[in-house]
Amino acid sequence: MPVLVMKFGGTSVATLDRIRRAAKRVGVEVAKGYDVIVIVSAMSGKTNELVGWVGETSALYDAREYDSVVSSGENVTAGLMALTLQEMDIPARSWQGWQVPVQTTAAHSSARIEDIPPENINAKFADGMRVAVVAGFQGVSPEGRITTLGRGGSDTTAVAFAAAFDAERCDIYTDVDGVYTTDPRVSPKARKLDKISFEEMLELASLGAKVLQTRSVELAMRYKVKLRVLSSFEEQSDDAGTLVCDEEEIMESNVVAGVAFSRDEAKMTLVSVADRPGIAAAIFGALSEGGVNVDMIVQNISEEGRTDMTWSCPVDQVARAEKAMEEAKASGAINFAEMIADTDVAKVSVVGIGMRSHTGVAAKMFDVLSAESINIQVITTSEIKISVLINRKYMELAVQALHDAFELDKAA
Amino acid sequence: MPVLVMKFGGTSVATLDRIRRAAKRVGVEVAKGYDVIVIVSAMSGKTNELVGWVGETSALYDAREYDSVVSSGENVTAGLMALTLQEMDIPARSWQGWQVPVQTTAAHSSARIEDIPPENINAKFADGMRVAVVAGFQGVSPEGRITTLGRGGSDTTAVAFAAAFDAERCDIYTDVDGVYTTDPRVSPKARKLDKISFEEMLELASLGAKVLQTRSVELAMRYKVKLRVLSSFEEQSDDAGTLVCDEEEIMESNVVAGVAFSRDEAKMTLVSVADRPGIAAAIFGALSEGGVNVDMIVQNISEEGRTDMTWSCPVDQVARAEKAMEEAKASGAINFAEMIADTDVAKVSVVGIGMRSHTGVAAKMFDVLSAESINIQVITTSEIKISVLINRKYMELAVQALHDAFELDKAA
Repeated sequence: MPVLVMKFGGTSVATLDRIRRAAKRVGVEVAKGYDVIVIVSAMSGKTNELVGWVGETSALYDAREYDSVVSSGENVTAGLMALTLQEMDIPARSWQGWQVPVQTTAAHSSARIEDIPPENINAKFADGMRVAVVAGFQGVSPEGRITTLGRGGSDTTAVAFAAAFDAERCDIYTDVDGVYTTDPRVSPKARKLDKISFEEMLELASLGAKVLQTRSVELAMRYKVKLRVLSSFEEQSDDAGTLVCDEEEIMESNVVAGVAFSRDEAKMTLVSVADRPGIAAAIFGALSEGGVNVDMIVQNISEEGRTDMTWSCPVDQVARAEKAMEEAKASGAINFAEMIADTDVAKVSVVGIGMRSHTGVAAKMFDVLSAESINIQVITTSEIKISVLINRKYMELAVQALHDAFELDKAA
Repeated sequence: MPVLVMKFGGTSVATLDRIRRAAKRVGVEVAKGYDVIVIVSAMSGKTNELVGWVGETSALYDAREYDSVVSSGENVTAGLMALTLQEMDIPARSWQGWQVPVQTTAAHSSARIEDIPPENINAKFADGMRVAVVAGFQGVSPEGRITTLGRGGSDTTAVAFAAAFDAERCDIYTDVDGVYTTDPRVSPKARKLDKISFEEMLELASLGAKVLQTRSVELAMRYKVKLRVLSSFEEQSDDAGTLVCDEEEIMESNVVAGVAFSRDEAKMTLVSVADRPGIAAAIFGALSEGGVNVDMIVQNISEEGRTDMTWSCPVDQVARAEKAMEEAKASGAINFAEMIADTDVAKVSVVGIGMRSHTGVAAKMFDVLSAESINIQVITTSEIKISVLINRKYMELAVQALHDAFELDKAA
């Protein structure tokens, strides 16, 4: 029988009632003839409680013990989901990560899945079991210890199972009903997309649209797993939600698929840096070691052997960045006259695979912002994305103006 | 290095503070030179919450899923305890049941431990680990599924580890500071015993003194594991608590070790049963199938081929017993004129290995009760125990009078 993977996030299994509702959705797919693999998260709030206890117990905790503790929430939901399905007369059982086994690296609390041998679960499917309920987010290391995949890792578990079992599709049930052209709270004209390409979804995910974990999209793209994002709180038709798929499967699409934004950015500048080969490596190496996630980078042209170096990073990493730069200066690794931090900026991006074949998207974006008198501070581009850093107070205005200009409220 | 097993119950690990306090106790034993195996229960209340969820999900639940869900509480405590010990610079790690592995039968939710191969944990001890923190109450079946040992099973886990690792002693930390001659809430003269024999402890445990799970005492007796019961809430000296041990290790002891009681008993009588071979088997077979735990049994002498059959059982099983008897009567398996249930009785017992060599204990017990004008309704005896069923309102009086008469407030 064809296999379907269905993943339910924390809010979709937050109570026994919601677990029952999710189980009914599973029942619908079983009735269609699918063998179903259900991936569950912990009841919402549970993982945070466990993480809190670990943090309170030990500031510099042993990640192996952390994994052993925080993975327990998913085990509870998996068992309860299996029991609920059994109550509906659907043959089901739960699997903890080590029972499958979900083999991962030993990088505790951010492990990567290496293999999911399908034999154990397939033997049960052959025996008449219709649903395998698997605890998401967890696996087992080569040493036989429990690992976790990092926050949001259940999405990755789901995609990895879809790949390992050659599933027809991987349905991610969540608390939103799909992927939107932008955040509806910022632009009321935001439209739900029926389809979006992996590449676009990757850019949107990494730009702060928190519908799917970035790694799960990467994995889906690599193994060509059809991903569908849909709501567990609405009655579902077969074409509900948003399908994340290969771009060949998208017949028509707008040049721009969506407008993403990130509110909590900071712009930092080192003024009058001695310009010599290796200076960028010295600066950004020190920032990386200091735990700063640098996003955009701009280097001004050099004048008389001095240059200004500008980058953006999350606003809550500014203190860390300042510490790293002062230390690098003190050690003589770098030299600068002044360090400026602007914590009052936001990033706005337009994303679309159509950009590859359509020129003029960047020019149009700059025109729109200019018409609204919004000053662009930093620009970066990739093949399918243009991002700008602007003053935070203009962020909503910029998103709405770009959404209108690229006519994202209308389907292609 | 010599091995010590220390078990902490739910109230002893109910909060992070209490886990820290328990870890300090462990640290004291590590400093003495012991390699320590710590067995932990779930934080108090957690297992009940999980059991409640399972019951709400499914009335006739799959015991395999039940075990998978309810065992998760112990995993959390085990990880937190290991982290707490690491914070104290004591090399420690946690072990879930399947990791050790604690091999059990497949009788889910009431599994029995079959083997605990010590190799994995011993290899870590040889490597410098000083404390193995093991999640109590759980194991793994031959099919690789998680099992649990039944409520209170962590005591049994602790004793089984002490046997498997040939531990010097098994210390059970709980919320009372030892085993008493009777419940101090009933008799203010109750005295803590320094030592008690396995046999006496077994009788006391099965009679309702809930300090230790009966199975753990049986196991300790079979493998000659020295058990010590002591409080996790008090500063401890080396001879704190009560040592449960082989009777040869007890030099002097009172004839009677303690007075036990059970408040919630019922006495049931079938009047005018046709007396024929096999009638007792028919009655008590039907009661057993009906889930009734029969305790005492009395059969009156037969007159003209009819007899009365009396037994005691927990008061909350009376309805079940009545149903089983009515059904057996309807099916023609048994025949009786009338069924009487007295739900207003209590059981009081005196227990002591000294009874083996001292006669007159029963006579003295009956004298004491008679002097208080307490009517004895049913009597049973074993080698080291005499139990009587009396009207519940005299229970406290009977316990106090017997405690005084056998001078249990004074050490031997």
